[in-house]
Amino acid sequence: MRIEKDFLGTKEIADQALYGIHALRARENFPGHSAFNKNWYKAMGLVKHACYLTYEKYINAVTKKYGKQAPVQKIEQEKITALQHAALKIANGDFFEQFIVPAIQGGAGTSINMNINEIITNLALTDLKRKPGEYEFIDPIEHANIFQSTNDTVPTALKVAIMKLLEELEETVNNSRNQVETLEKKYRDALRTSYTQLQQAVPTSYGKMFSAYNDALSRDWWRISKCAERIKVVNLGGSAIGSGITVPTYFIMEVVPTLQKLTGLPITRGENMMDATSNLDSFVEIHATLKSLAVNLEKIASDLRLLAADISTHSEFTIPERQAGSSIMPGKVNPVISEFIISSAHKVYANDQIVSSLAGQGHLELNAYIPQIGDTTLESLEILINANRSMAAHLIDGISINNKEAAAKLYNSPSICTALIPYIGYHKAGDLAKHMHQHKTSVFEANEKLLVLEPKKLEQITQASNLLKLGYKPSDL
Amino acid sequence: MRIEKDFLGTKEIADQALYGIHALRARENFPGHSAFNKNWYKAMGLVKHACYLTYEKYINAVTKKYGKQAPVQKIEQEKITALQHAALKIANGDFFEQFIVPAIQGGAGTSINMNINEIITNLALTDLKRKPGEYEFIDPIEHANIFQSTNDTVPTALKVAIMKLLEELEETVNNSRNQVETLEKKYRDALRTSYTQLQQAVPTSYGKMFSAYNDALSRDWWRISKCAERIKVVNLGGSAIGSGITVPTYFIMEVVPTLQKLTGLPITRGENMMDATSNLDSFVEIHATLKSLAVNLEKIASDLRLLAADISTHSEFTIPERQAGSSIMPGKVNPVISEFIISSAHKVYANDQIVSSLAGQGHLELNAYIPQIGDTTLESLEILINANRSMAAHLIDGISINNKEAAAKLYNSPSICTALIPYIGYHKAGDLAKHMHQHKTSVFEANEKLLVLEPKKLEQITQASNLLKLGYKPSDL
Amino acid sequence: MRIEKDFLGTKEIADQALYGIHALRARENFPGHSAFNKNWYKAMGLVKHACYLTYEKYINAVTKKYGKQAPVQKIEQEKITALQHAALKIANGDFFEQFIVPAIQGGAGTSINMNINEIITNLALTDLKRKPGEYEFIDPIEHANIFQSTNDTVPTALKVAIMKLLEELEETVNNSRNQVETLEKKYRDALRTSYTQLQQAVPTSYGKMFSAYNDALSRDWWRISKCAERIKVVNLGGSAIGSGITVPTYFIMEVVPTLQKLTGLPITRGENMMDATSNLDSFVEIHATLKSLAVNLEKIASDLRLLAADISTHSEFTIPERQAGSSIMPGKVNPVISEFIISSAHKVYANDQIVSSLAGQGHLELNAYIPQIGDTTLESLEILINANRSMAAHLIDGISINNKEAAAKLYNSPSICTALIPYIGYHKAGDLAKHMHQHKTSVFEANEKLLVLEPKKLEQITQASNLLKLGYKPSDL
Amino acid sequence: MRIEKDFLGTKEIADQALYGIHALRARENFPGHSAFNKNWYKAMGLVKHACYLTYEKYINAVTKKYGKQAPVQKIEQEKITALQHAALKIANGDFFEQFIVPAIQGGAGTSINMNINEIITNLALTDLKRKPGEYEFIDPIEHANIFQSTNDTVPTALKVAIMKLLEELEETVNNSRNQVETLEKKYRDALRTSYTQLQQAVPTSYGKMFSAYNDALSRDWWRISKCAERIKVVNLGGSAIGSGITVPTYFIMEVVPTLQKLTGLPITRGENMMDATSNLDSFVEIHATLKSLAVNLEKIASDLRLLAADISTHSEFTIPERQAGSSIMPGKVNPVISEFIISSAHKVYANDQIVSSLAGQGHLELNAYIPQIGDTTLESLEILINANRSMAAHLIDGISINNKEAAAKLYNSPSICTALIPYIGYHKAGDLAKHMHQHKTSVFEANEKLLVLEPKKLEQITQASNLLKLGYKPSDL
Repeated sequence: MRIEKDFLGTKEIADQALYGIHALRARENFPGHSAFNKNWYKAMGLVKHACYLTYEKYINAVTKKYGKQAPVQKIEQEKITALQHAALKIANGDFFEQFIVPAIQGGAGTSINMNINEIITNLALTDLKRKPGEYEFIDPIEHANIFQSTNDTVPTALKVAIMKLLEELEETVNNSRNQVETLEKKYRDALRTSYTQLQQAVPTSYGKMFSAYNDALSRDWWRISKCAERIKVVNLGGSAIGSGITVPTYFIMEVVPTLQKLTGLPITRGENMMDATSNLDSFVEIHATLKSLAVNLEKIASDLRLLAADISTHSEFTIPERQAGSSIMPGKVNPVISEFIISSAHKVYANDQIVSSLAGQGHLELNAYIPQIGDTTLESLEILINANRSMAAHLIDGISINNKEAAAKLYNSPSICTALIPYIGYHKAGDLAKHMHQHKTSVFEANEKLLVLEPKKLEQITQASNLLKLGYKPSDL
Repeated sequence: MRIEKDFLGTKEIADQALYGIHALRARENFPGHSAFNKNWYKAMGLVKHACYLTYEKYINAVTKKYGKQAPVQKIEQEKITALQHAALKIANGDFFEQFIVPAIQGGAGTSINMNINEIITNLALTDLKRKPGEYEFIDPIEHANIFQSTNDTVPTALKVAIMKLLEELEETVNNSRNQVETLEKKYRDALRTSYTQLQQAVPTSYGKMFSAYNDALSRDWWRISKCAERIKVVNLGGSAIGSGITVPTYFIMEVVPTLQKLTGLPITRGENMMDATSNLDSFVEIHATLKSLAVNLEKIASDLRLLAADISTHSEFTIPERQAGSSIMPGKVNPVISEFIISSAHKVYANDQIVSSLAGQGHLELNAYIPQIGDTTLESLEILINANRSMAAHLIDGISINNKEAAAKLYNSPSICTALIPYIGYHKAGDLAKHMHQHKTSVFEANEKLLVLEPKKLEQITQASNLLKLGYKPSDL
Repeated sequence: MRIEKDFLGTKEIADQALYGIHALRARENFPGHSAFNKNWYKAMGLVKHACYLTYEKYINAVTKKYGKQAPVQKIEQEKITALQHAALKIANGDFFEQFIVPAIQGGAGTSINMNINEIITNLALTDLKRKPGEYEFIDPIEHANIFQSTNDTVPTALKVAIMKLLEELEETVNNSRNQVETLEKKYRDALRTSYTQLQQAVPTSYGKMFSAYNDALSRDWWRISKCAERIKVVNLGGSAIGSGITVPTYFIMEVVPTLQKLTGLPITRGENMMDATSNLDSFVEIHATLKSLAVNLEKIASDLRLLAADISTHSEFTIPERQAGSSIMPGKVNPVISEFIISSAHKVYANDQIVSSLAGQGHLELNAYIPQIGDTTLESLEILINANRSMAAHLIDGISINNKEAAAKLYNSPSICTALIPYIGYHKAGDLAKHMHQHKTSVFEANEKLLVLEPKKLEQITQASNLLKLGYKPSDL
Repeated sequence: MRIEKDFLGTKEIADQALYGIHALRARENFPGHSAFNKNWYKAMGLVKHACYLTYEKYINAVTKKYGKQAPVQKIEQEKITALQHAALKIANGDFFEQFIVPAIQGGAGTSINMNINEIITNLALTDLKRKPGEYEFIDPIEHANIFQSTNDTVPTALKVAIMKLLEELEETVNNSRNQVETLEKKYRDALRTSYTQLQQAVPTSYGKMFSAYNDALSRDWWRISKCAERIKVVNLGGSAIGSGITVPTYFIMEVVPTLQKLTGLPITRGENMMDATSNLDSFVEIHATLKSLAVNLEKIASDLRLLAADISTHSEFTIPERQAGSSIMPGKVNPVISEFIISSAHKVYANDQIVSSLAGQGHLELNAYIPQIGDTTLESLEILINANRSMAAHLIDGISINNKEAAAKLYNSPSICTALIPYIGYHKAGDLAKHMHQHKTSVFEANEKLLVLEPKKLEQITQASNLLKLGYKPSDL
């Protein structure tokens, strides 16, 4: 055991532990130990690495301009190098088990920043053949936290983590959309009766149904692609409250471009770093985009479940069988992927509430709830990435439709008669519909009896190409 | 009493009533009679007017091309003219008491459309010296609803109503922002201690605080200005499910430009009108923007309440007194405008939940819940317009700050010492802070005792212009 | 115009207006003018009436004990009598148009209390042949508000209003339950296939389905009947913050029993009136009960919609036709009552969020958001009363089931074979199911081919009385 | 690798894996792999154990009554014994890593039940010196699932897990309450000014403040203690949809008492097991109770944070310092426990939304979302247990109040004058207040100037015992 101290007292820490007293206090204060999101952890490594690289450049620039006696706080090169190496390991996700701060926490992220500072410091110490805890050599605050603050590193890292997941989400949504588009093309002319409020409405096709999904997912795709724009503004270099206090101008100007280069993300420095520290409305905006996607996923998953269900009349429509559905009824298969997607969507709806209810609860220069806002946003991103993956691979890919059966149902449904109104008028169309209804016959058989139209004309009108056309001209009639 | 009938039976209607059997059935089916939003009612008038104008152009075009015998459904000119006049009265908000369909309703808007059709028909009948109910002359469905459907007129009118309120909201948000900017300029150098997590942090100014609000409201302003883009796509002309069924191509192509001209709004026709009918994610997106604004308003209102409260140490900061605050404690004044704004924000949060939870519950070609989604969105818009108006006029305009008192508090707070660290190092700054804390003195008095800095240098460093600067150069030190 | 003043200044008020300066300021401060709930208004009248009755008793008791010179604040009898009459008019709902304070407001209810005080005062003045505004004769604060405070009258009246609506809700829920029970009895033996996850499961009956609804509604009924217990504790007499400050002990002890007698409700005085003022968790508890009911209503409405829908295979099941469902497709009827109920339920879910998010935002001795919490709770109560009324009258009453068709479907579904497993074992049951599936035959026909059971035995096993029995004994086999 | 198969095909499984093909398919179908709640896993072991014990008793009873040839499905005793042992290991939490089904899943719990069946089977096989996967010897469905169904075991286990956590929560809430009560007693007479809407109101004491918290927590304690009543009704023995299909009556009657004995919980069998399967309103009810607690915790945590904050005027009030609060400002300590509690509360609010929004989405005989409803409820229970633990140990225990300083502030606040109104009347009290305000003096000094009361009388009136008394009698004056 080694002893670490802070201004509140001392704590025993296991000799080889990379975390320190600050992390340990946090762990004791916040029982429950909900798992912290690893993407944020890794992004903290990137941010710290950018800070150490910038620090090194700053010292070199100052030394060049003012000489070795320049009145600046200097850290020896070997230490900076060791800190840089350590930060990269965090960025790589290593030593995550040494991060002992839970997701649900108080303190506006101080515990996150300090646990990272402690791991980096102790990794750097080990690198330089020192023991963990030899903070007189490298200090978690004076060195690992140089020119930084919780107020800037923690939200900046969060934005980096979000932007990375957004890229992944964008790709999975586009993949879902692509698969829907394949179905749209494949079933372009697969006629069916539409349903409004679960009741039969007018003629349409499966292709049209998929095209509506395609358009919805296209909007999601576009919205997600625009999300990075909404959170690309970071306050790194802003130190406490975004004021830039105690930080050299050179560092403030250079650290964000360094991080940008390091991550390849379109990060920019906030003009007003105090705004970027105290106002979290951009997270509300981002998460709302996630919610819009969740809404569309629920709609699609719910539709496909209904069409494929035993309870619906659409026996022509099947979805892939994914797992045995009962421990008692042999052969039962349930729409588990739809249920998974809908469960995921409702989780995202609830997460949306967390983000906005806490975003409104900031006080003056800071919002203390950034840990929960961040964790929730990252969770929603992951949930949606997985929902899309499952939907694309296990639900959409494998949908099968019997075109003939579908078209036969349409021709047997009185609802087809609405399409004849421009040709034969409302009343004759009504007579036809009534006959179909009473005699359970197709529109063709009914017309043979009633002869309201030339059979050839009827056949032509009820072809997919004509039924699916938008509008008509008097010359068509 | 007159008797009206539909295919379910008959109903007695008061002789002079402009509503008819469809509206009356809806009223009976949906007790509670929550007030319908008048903005939507008026927008229905605009949409119907656009339809009648387009119908007239269509008939003229057809007659010109095909002659009087063209196989089209013709309505006499005098009737069309009467329908146009009637629709304009609706657009003007007249006869709103004849609209008896409540806000909370079933039926995907059919009752809305039918009540409007009935009022328009009966107004037109009256115009032509007929009695209400003489539907063999003008019919609510065959004439007033010509080439239309609930599926296209109701959501299109909703979007028109939303776009009009968005313009109003944009203006009020900008007005709030403007007033905040005035304070930002006025108190640019009004030094104060910042607070993070309600604890004293580093030096800043009231100007900086207002600048953060300004930036937040600027984002809201920008977001709201972009909202119209998100819902400008309408499905008017799409008829049932957006299929365009029974509607002439000419009408489909012309009716949206006509509505656009009529309203002056940047409305466009949806490429995929079935998507625009079945997927309501754009309402989720719009409402999320409203929620982002609500979050920022709550934050600002809550901050101003706290600063001005008896419970806070900020006696230099006062907000306008708006009403007597107690029926028992004379002279008590409460922060009622902040409370009004926060109440408004929480209502918007809850409304956001309604919109998304119902938007995800659509089925196949239609979402039956558009009445509630629409009503909720319009309500949120109105709430936010009013919250902004009250905030600008009754809270922000009238804020008064005693600069001297504020600055004195900063100079007496040990937190000022953080700003000295680049000049005197961490440890001397700490000594100064400790002395201030123990002896309850100002930084100047403490320095006179400890002399860690030239008094002149200290004065210069602690001037607003220096304290509020972002970053420092080694040459500053 | 008359001029009224308060310590902030003066306002012009229309001569005959019964409201005064406090109400007018509130109206200006809180634009939007959302309608205030009349039930609360009426309950304020009851509470005020109880206070004036108690005051009268107090003065009489004091005079009796201490003589006419007792050091108490005395109001002449004629004024008290006039105040009592005025309060009764409020309790009756009269002059509601003079209540000009909107539902969404700041100020913890002060504006509600003051508008009521003003109306009562001016009514009393009129009663005594004075003019509105002659407050030197009767004063809205010194007289109308005698021994009261906003902190006690407003929440007490809210609880009275809630308890009255709870009684109404209890009755309507029981009525729904009763109607469901009628169906349960009527269709006790109406066999059908059950569905889990929308897929066919094991045999059951419509009676069983209704019995599950009956049990759910019974729980709701019971829970609602217990709700009054949860909010019956009031703080009337508690004055500011529930401290009882400036109020005689006699009044504190007598006013609640007086209100109890007046309302016939089981109201009791809080032991800890400060708790009853500052903690609003009991509203959270009440509203959660409303939400549980909404959840059950949504489930039932959604089931009935699905069974009766065109899209489902349950043509044997029909719900009442309530209104024409399309302005373009003749004869289309939609499940509007289900949609109305589901819309209502989602409104209640959102209201639940408002109540709890604001209930957690109280500060020290008071929660400033009681106006919105109260308005929201009353709205939810009304919504649910109406949803139940519509459900009972327009949806459940009128359900019709074709028993024979339903049973035939069950006998034709392979899922019936699960019921045979105890008799013939898993494998033979599987063979039968497979044969039914392949040859689209009934279980009886399949058994004629495969003869896995005596036909008579099969008939006996598949009778409703046997299929619906819970469990079996070895001797049954 | 071993090969397992189901009716959809085959899968390779690692030789020593205890899970099987059903679990593996679920894992592939539901990416994301959110951690399943271990409490539920353990409760599944208890439920399975109760089933195997009951099965053994049933076979013995049948054999005794009908002899060895009784037509029942028999499993050899050694296998039953092995299954019983295996179930106990699950109940103990062992082999949790073999449970590979994620929290967010589709399928109404089938994957949970099957993964447990697979682990139990393979443990039993190992126990009998067989290899995992030798299902021809012991089968996960025919043996491990004997007389059970997902529909009954999964919700029953969930209720067992909930009831156990409820007991833990009850204890922690009572502990919080106890600690608050200690403060209530300790600071009974510690006078202070109350605050309504953050503005100074009338005199009160810290004891009164804590007594309000005590009452709020007492209600929570009582409500939580009643929760078990709300979910004690289980459907174990009900098999598919609660119908009891294929299950002997003996088993149905005995299994719940067996589970009751095993767990020591007041579990009872549902009269209507189909209701208990399809309607999940009792979870809504339970979770609402958790939300009420969260609301009270937020209120308390927020109050204590405000009183102890730098920003408030209550320097007499301090909370324990728990961790260093800044990586840049030395000595800064933040109210991290309050923030932790408020974050926890908001998580519970969002969870409440998940539970009710999904509880309303059941279809006919089942609600497919029980996995998410269950996971969410268990999470909320754990969050609240931890929030209470942290609050009691790290926030309430350690609060310190300087009584003298607090009282002095009250005597210097004009708000004390309200307490004098019964003695000197409204106007003299007002004069005193005005003098105190203008001259910044105490009530005693002001009275020395104005002499509106005998100084001795004033001293007596303003003593704690008198100020905190409820009401007054004319003889007190």
